[in-house]
Amino acid sequence: MRAIFEQELGAVGDDLLRMSRQVQTAVREASAALASADLQAAEQVIVADDAIDQIERELDDRCVNLLARQQPVATDLRIIVSGLRMSASIERMGDLARHVAQVTRLRYPEQAIPENSRGLFAQLADAANKVAADVVQLLETRDLELAAAIERDDDILDQLHQQTFNETLSPDWTGSTAQTVDVTLLARFYERFGDHAVSVARRISYLVTGDLEGLGDYNS
Amino acid sequence: MRAIFEQELGAVGDDLLRMSRQVQTAVREASAALASADLQAAEQVIVADDAIDQIERELDDRCVNLLARQQPVATDLRIIVSGLRMSASIERMGDLARHVAQVTRLRYPEQAIPENSRGLFAQLADAANKVAADVVQLLETRDLELAAAIERDDDILDQLHQQTFNETLSPDWTGSTAQTVDVTLLARFYERFGDHAVSVARRISYLVTGDLEGLGDYNS
Repeated sequence: MRAIFEQELGAVGDDLLRMSRQVQTAVREASAALASADLQAAEQVIVADDAIDQIERELDDRCVNLLARQQPVATDLRIIVSGLRMSASIERMGDLARHVAQVTRLRYPEQAIPENSRGLFAQLADAANKVAADVVQLLETRDLELAAAIERDDDILDQLHQQTFNETLSPDWTGSTAQTVDVTLLARFYERFGDHAVSVARRISYLVTGDLEGLGDYNS
Repeated sequence: MRAIFEQELGAVGDDLLRMSRQVQTAVREASAALASADLQAAEQVIVADDAIDQIERELDDRCVNLLARQQPVATDLRIIVSGLRMSASIERMGDLARHVAQVTRLRYPEQAIPENSRGLFAQLADAANKVAADVVQLLETRDLELAAAIERDDDILDQLHQQTFNETLSPDWTGSTAQTVDVTLLARFYERFGDHAVSVARRISYLVTGDLEGLGDYNS
């Protein structure tokens, strides 16, 4: 019994890792498509999100079945409950990458981001790519240094998000109203992407250390 | 044992109901504060959100303890897993009401919403109030008519959200850039509020009917 259970628990971890890798691809491709107004790349991100949603559903079924059949306690139980939580967060990160791609598609063949703000969005993309890579590596290694790095990456995303407000509200802003709307929403998508990564990082920290205090207010 | 378990399961339901009532108050007060640029009311919504977050943490602990000590199966297990999911959705609805209040506070003593858009935001507030009331009643009664009503309310929120884009992008739009930013974000907060209500509605439908198909893509 225990061997099967270990195998199933391992499959939960594998599913989370698989989702996080697909999210990493999604946010990288969505940002690239945004930067170059690449309709085909944007469409691919949108379509690929279905696969992430599908893994989430399988993972949830797996977790609920494990709870029902194995009646786990202590650490095993924590792993499964955390798996349910993390799958929701990672799935949502995929949705946010899809939202970025959807804005790109909506504005095609125009560029959604006005020229003056493209540098800022390149920084947002870099920070999001780093967050996504750190989430993958954290799920692989459970190295809590990465959890701390994700908190710092998220601070950077928050600062860049704040800077987009400074840009749009500055007297130098010459973007159209549509560009104001797009910049506002796109920056928010990146900022939320970071929040969900922090949520995953705190769940992993909780699993490793058993410390619930760190979970804070970032739940999904 | 079963009597204690029933009592604990009932407490999960009570906590969800308590959270949903506080969210109902929060979104009503946040919308009212937004409409009248009422700083004090906005501050109250912001402070009150801590209490909602606190119930979520207690509820999660309760669910995890139930899973560990009672090792539930079948319907009991579904109730507890759904409780974990719904607490996350309802907590997030509270966050979104708080975000509306935070915009009101940020712009005080100015009104965040330009005069021409206030009618639209009154409709968003009405639809969000109806969603919140329906969630409370659904948790009280498990009446699936209300779950269907929440899906319809959410459609209305989506349409109104779309209308805010039409307004800001229309040639008649005379709002400042700050107002464009605020209208864009505020409308998005209301739209997401509806999405989370739908997530709760689908979880309850799943509990009542056992039909997983309806859960769809609205998870947190």
